[in-house]
Amino acid sequence: MTPVRAVTEVTLSSADTSIVVVVLCIALVALVMGFVYRREVLAASPGTESMQEIGGAVQEGASAYLGRQFRTLGIFAVVAFFLLMALPADDLGVRIGRSVAFLFGAAFSASIGYLGMNLATAANMRVAEAARHGDRDAGMRIAFRTGGTVGMATVGLGLLGAALVVLIYRGDAPKVLEGFGFGAALLAMFMRVGGGIFTKAADVGADLVGKVEAGIPEDDPRNAATIADNVGDNVGDCAGMAADLFESYAVTLVAALILGTAALGNEGGLTFPLIIPAIGVVTAILGVYITRARNGENALRAINRSFYISAGVAAVASVIAAFVVLPDDASQLGGITDEGLLAGGAASVVDVNPALGAAAAVVIGIVLAAFILWLTGYFTGTESKPTNDVARTSLTGPATVVLSGIGVGLESAVYTAVTIAIAIFALFTLGGGSLILSLFFVALAGCGLLTTVGVIVAMDTFGPVSDNAQGIAEMSGDVDGEGAQILTELDAVGNTTKAITKGIAIATAVLAATALFGSYLDAIVQAVRTAVGDDTGAVWDQFLVFDPRALVGMLIGGAVVFLFSGLAINAVTRAAGAIVFEVRRQFREKPGIMDYTEKPEYARVVDICTRDSLRELATPGLLAVFAPIAVGFGLGVGALAGYLAGAIVTGVLMAIFLANSGGAWDNAKKIVEDGHYGGKGTDAHAATVIGDTVGDPFKDTAGPAINPLIKVMNLVALLIAPAIIGLTYGDGASAPIRWGIALVALVVIVAAVVVSKRRDIAIGDAPERAGVLTES
Amino acid sequence: MTPVRAVTEVTLSSADTSIVVVVLCIALVALVMGFVYRREVLAASPGTESMQEIGGAVQEGASAYLGRQFRTLGIFAVVAFFLLMALPADDLGVRIGRSVAFLFGAAFSASIGYLGMNLATAANMRVAEAARHGDRDAGMRIAFRTGGTVGMATVGLGLLGAALVVLIYRGDAPKVLEGFGFGAALLAMFMRVGGGIFTKAADVGADLVGKVEAGIPEDDPRNAATIADNVGDNVGDCAGMAADLFESYAVTLVAALILGTAALGNEGGLTFPLIIPAIGVVTAILGVYITRARNGENALRAINRSFYISAGVAAVASVIAAFVVLPDDASQLGGITDEGLLAGGAASVVDVNPALGAAAAVVIGIVLAAFILWLTGYFTGTESKPTNDVARTSLTGPATVVLSGIGVGLESAVYTAVTIAIAIFALFTLGGGSLILSLFFVALAGCGLLTTVGVIVAMDTFGPVSDNAQGIAEMSGDVDGEGAQILTELDAVGNTTKAITKGIAIATAVLAATALFGSYLDAIVQAVRTAVGDDTGAVWDQFLVFDPRALVGMLIGGAVVFLFSGLAINAVTRAAGAIVFEVRRQFREKPGIMDYTEKPEYARVVDICTRDSLRELATPGLLAVFAPIAVGFGLGVGALAGYLAGAIVTGVLMAIFLANSGGAWDNAKKIVEDGHYGGKGTDAHAATVIGDTVGDPFKDTAGPAINPLIKVMNLVALLIAPAIIGLTYGDGASAPIRWGIALVALVVIVAAVVVSKRRDIAIGDAPERAGVLTES
Repeated sequence: MTPVRAVTEVTLSSADTSIVVVVLCIALVALVMGFVYRREVLAASPGTESMQEIGGAVQEGASAYLGRQFRTLGIFAVVAFFLLMALPADDLGVRIGRSVAFLFGAAFSASIGYLGMNLATAANMRVAEAARHGDRDAGMRIAFRTGGTVGMATVGLGLLGAALVVLIYRGDAPKVLEGFGFGAALLAMFMRVGGGIFTKAADVGADLVGKVEAGIPEDDPRNAATIADNVGDNVGDCAGMAADLFESYAVTLVAALILGTAALGNEGGLTFPLIIPAIGVVTAILGVYITRARNGENALRAINRSFYISAGVAAVASVIAAFVVLPDDASQLGGITDEGLLAGGAASVVDVNPALGAAAAVVIGIVLAAFILWLTGYFTGTESKPTNDVARTSLTGPATVVLSGIGVGLESAVYTAVTIAIAIFALFTLGGGSLILSLFFVALAGCGLLTTVGVIVAMDTFGPVSDNAQGIAEMSGDVDGEGAQILTELDAVGNTTKAITKGIAIATAVLAATALFGSYLDAIVQAVRTAVGDDTGAVWDQFLVFDPRALVGMLIGGAVVFLFSGLAINAVTRAAGAIVFEVRRQFREKPGIMDYTEKPEYARVVDICTRDSLRELATPGLLAVFAPIAVGFGLGVGALAGYLAGAIVTGVLMAIFLANSGGAWDNAKKIVEDGHYGGKGTDAHAATVIGDTVGDPFKDTAGPAINPLIKVMNLVALLIAPAIIGLTYGDGASAPIRWGIALVALVVIVAAVVVSKRRDIAIGDAPERAGVLTES
Repeated sequence: MTPVRAVTEVTLSSADTSIVVVVLCIALVALVMGFVYRREVLAASPGTESMQEIGGAVQEGASAYLGRQFRTLGIFAVVAFFLLMALPADDLGVRIGRSVAFLFGAAFSASIGYLGMNLATAANMRVAEAARHGDRDAGMRIAFRTGGTVGMATVGLGLLGAALVVLIYRGDAPKVLEGFGFGAALLAMFMRVGGGIFTKAADVGADLVGKVEAGIPEDDPRNAATIADNVGDNVGDCAGMAADLFESYAVTLVAALILGTAALGNEGGLTFPLIIPAIGVVTAILGVYITRARNGENALRAINRSFYISAGVAAVASVIAAFVVLPDDASQLGGITDEGLLAGGAASVVDVNPALGAAAAVVIGIVLAAFILWLTGYFTGTESKPTNDVARTSLTGPATVVLSGIGVGLESAVYTAVTIAIAIFALFTLGGGSLILSLFFVALAGCGLLTTVGVIVAMDTFGPVSDNAQGIAEMSGDVDGEGAQILTELDAVGNTTKAITKGIAIATAVLAATALFGSYLDAIVQAVRTAVGDDTGAVWDQFLVFDPRALVGMLIGGAVVFLFSGLAINAVTRAAGAIVFEVRRQFREKPGIMDYTEKPEYARVVDICTRDSLRELATPGLLAVFAPIAVGFGLGVGALAGYLAGAIVTGVLMAIFLANSGGAWDNAKKIVEDGHYGGKGTDAHAATVIGDTVGDPFKDTAGPAINPLIKVMNLVALLIAPAIIGLTYGDGASAPIRWGIALVALVVIVAAVVVSKRRDIAIGDAPERAGVLTES
């Protein structure tokens, strides 16, 4: 069964308009709340002079990096803006709106990233200061409210953008929002890749020279890479993750609105997808507000409690909203009739209760979020069996640590992917045989999952903030005793929240990508009807999984995910090599560093990280944008559909594998550092440090960047689908033009990869390179 | 467009019968040639007494392992035989024939594995003896002829089985051959998994204690695991690879015959797919015969030359055969009319030249083989840039070695997969819009690729034989000076041939799996027509890549490949742990071992390996067989199609990634051992040893086992498709029965995984376990 958009005109009734206005107000409330939380954070004491000095250096480095990154990305954005203008759309208004929305999406994504970084760098020292005074609760509150600010900005700006576009463009809003989502996703992907390379190059480089060679502890001020390491936490984990979750939020909204109008027409198609996230805003405010540890309670438990309470409230409210807003009989739907696409059968109204289905879909999304939170915790937590098994293999050396971590990652990917698969199958059955309704329910489940995003962002930001607080405390030497203990506890909690929110980010990405994939179908159906009229049968062959075109597309889609991951990992390896040689050089040329009589040149390392990560982000970025163009125009829309499916499937599995292997290694190291299997300084410890280093680019560079990657590729496909169909079946059909476009895209990809390969001087070459950097 | 089997009765004309008889004779010639090569090998001198003693111990261990393995697998085979009998088929004769053919397929697969192992263990000492006398050419000839014997047996038995079944069952042959292929694939998969675990558990265990802890060289007789390590080479690399390639051969033939009858009907459908491999037999004899190194020439160059010459001859001969046997006008085809499945359009004859298309398809297959040989060599050879880059990262320690190796593996997977994708797309366009013809051409390309199999098996077997020869020489201490140098050279060549043939094995597997996937479509089309009559439109929706069912299937299919890989890697880690503790125990309890006054108990380590690998092979095996059953009966034929597609795509990428990462690490270690970056004994060397150890289960356990895995799953799907359709759409449709079957399958999988998890005492627990083994 396949969608037919029976209703040609979707508009906004007065009642609907009022709903959207209310949503808009809620979005503004979120922004105000974010402002309130921010003031609360900034009101705290920034700490001793030395702490402020270190914190200031981190802030400066992070601002400098993001500034340069935005200038680089500005060029990309301008190019993309004009390419978007060139793509066909229903009318000029939509085309302009879409391109402008693109800029807004990109700008919002960038702003949230910047805000996250900026506030986190201010909060770091404040958390350290609170700990210095032994005030654990204040420290925890500052860290969590910092995340709360970012979380509110994420949901506020996302909802604001979507609601505004719906108010202005009404029935055309979904088309315009494609631009908004694309801007958000593209920027987020670049920030994920660039920030991910920065943070892990600094981290790996610092560890390799500091911990392994010089035998000095983490965050030791004698290590020239420590400031860069802290900067990295802020530009990677804070700015990158915030932009990523904003992008997930925006893109899911876009997909829900596209599929909503196709499935529900005027019966809530434009409003219901906004109501669910609006509920999420309210529950997120609740969640951030109620997060406070009871007397002596573990911080993680308090955070988890807020998560589950706010998720529960959101579920109940969403169910009520569904029954209030949506019809309970499919025959009331103006917008949905299903016609057997393949059967050539007659149009028929699907026998399903939309209100019930939608309510169930949202609840499935929320339950999925909770379950995945638990599952990721199981595979990566310090208490859990898999992580402890990995820690135990340290007794037989680094090789077995690496192998067992890979084993855990592969396995955890299976359980997570199968869970998501089961959820999608359940959502499919809710659709009662209507493909478009099923796909809409998938999008709604994504919205449900995203009701938790406010709290998730807060949890996630908690990680780098407490990590940095500890770093600043360590470097300043101003915090000890109880204060240091508090910071260690907060850091451990932050590690866990950071790991488990990755699971949520992936689940969100899968649902969003699947929904976008459905939107791609909708785009094709419409474009095909425009191009060939009603007798579209022959077009559909290429979408069969059996068709070699689809299969070839899948192979290429899967391969692109592998290439992207490989490029990201290689970039970190390369950049880390440069850091290693720079730090070694400083130790050699400034012998006073080791006995504290000389200060290392922190800024130089920050510079190298900045330069390298900006240079490295182009290749994976170009690959993500141009690969679907090459496949789509070159091999057709069927191959492109296969491509998207292959990328989603391989992307999910790889993202979870990379994230959870990395998480397990990280905590295996912590287990050994806590005194098990010999504890710090033993061979077992060295083995787990190696495992952790391998895991660094897995979990913080390649893995998380796959989330925006699969969405960017789906959005590109969605945007170019009408053009491909037009050039294949329409009046202006022209194989040479199609192939010409494909060829240009291919050339761009090959050139980008070749350029990146030519940088492929491996780590061993870096002495000369470090030399070059020094002279310049 | 989709296939309709217009010709209901495919038979064998007298002319066709004659062709098949000639093919049969060629198959017998291959077997005779194998016998001749074997005598030649055995005629060589078996070497000194001490070499014979060591060789004898290896042979004994290998025979004992395979014997026990076959007894274990016998149970599986009997169960599978009865399950097969229970599955519906056209008539009872086909059903019985198929089940009997299953037993033959399994028996042939096992025999070839046994033969390969048996002859290799005899050849090892003979190669060492030839080297002892400084006769490099003789050593090389013995090693290559050993492989030649196995190669001839592979192609001889494969062709013999297929030709016999065609002669006996004629039009029903494809159905019966499904059993043959399934038997071959199932046995091969178990042998791959079991042998792979054995060989790598022994290898990793031996290295971890010997090289890393005790600081003694590889193959040192003081290491209790050395004999087990050599046994492993024979049961894993020889027996496993031989069975795997036999299985690829058989399965490709089966798919080509199924699709051939569907596409060509009586116009060569049953004969042409036999002619191409028959040509391959002749050129393989040529290839093995002409392999001799010219004066002082590198052995690898000589082997490569034979490969390219025999491939070239095969290509020319195949093109001639195509034009002689096949019609050059599609309208002459009795068997092919294409009906727009989705369009509901009228049947139409496809405008394509079958002879030209078939000739091109075979040539594409052969060219693909040659290209992949080169590509794999590029990514894993000691001379090539990527491997040298990995070696160079050893300067910054094991973590960067592991990361860069993973980067190389990911990237190489991309190029190989994209190459295969391009080949498939080219084959698709040859089909001129007929899906069934396209798929037949894919199968033919597989046949083309397989014309090189005789030489490929010979090349591959060269690896373990020369490796073992060196091991025996080292342990006996009887070979030194020039002899030792010859063996080192042969071993290095063997490492490369072993690595590059893996690429071919994977490419074969992809084409075979894609062709089987096409056969699955054919099976569904027929079953659906039987069940619902001609109006089948509504059935096809679930096969659209967009359909959530297909997408869910893909996710699960990809996940199963990850789980399978994870299980295999974990099994090696676990088993290696047991070896480590056993060897440590022997060193501790027999202090005389280190000064050669006491002999280690080699047999005990062989015992542990045998026991553990037999125990470990069940879980991945059950997963491969029961996962498609659970998905197919539980979620339907559309989800099962998605499942197969997901498994193929993820399987290809993972198989190449694992194989090439492993190959790159292996040779990076060799580069350092050759004196680069500090050479043996430095930290850089230790770093590459760790990389190599991580790569061991990648390249020799998990990676290669994926090849038979994806074929076994496709064959299971092919066999159960009619039953699923019957229970879904037929007269006997029954959801409870379907779900009941799915549930049983699911329970089997979960139970198998849980049992394997309960063994998941990680390596650190092994002391107690080793103790238990000692007492028992």
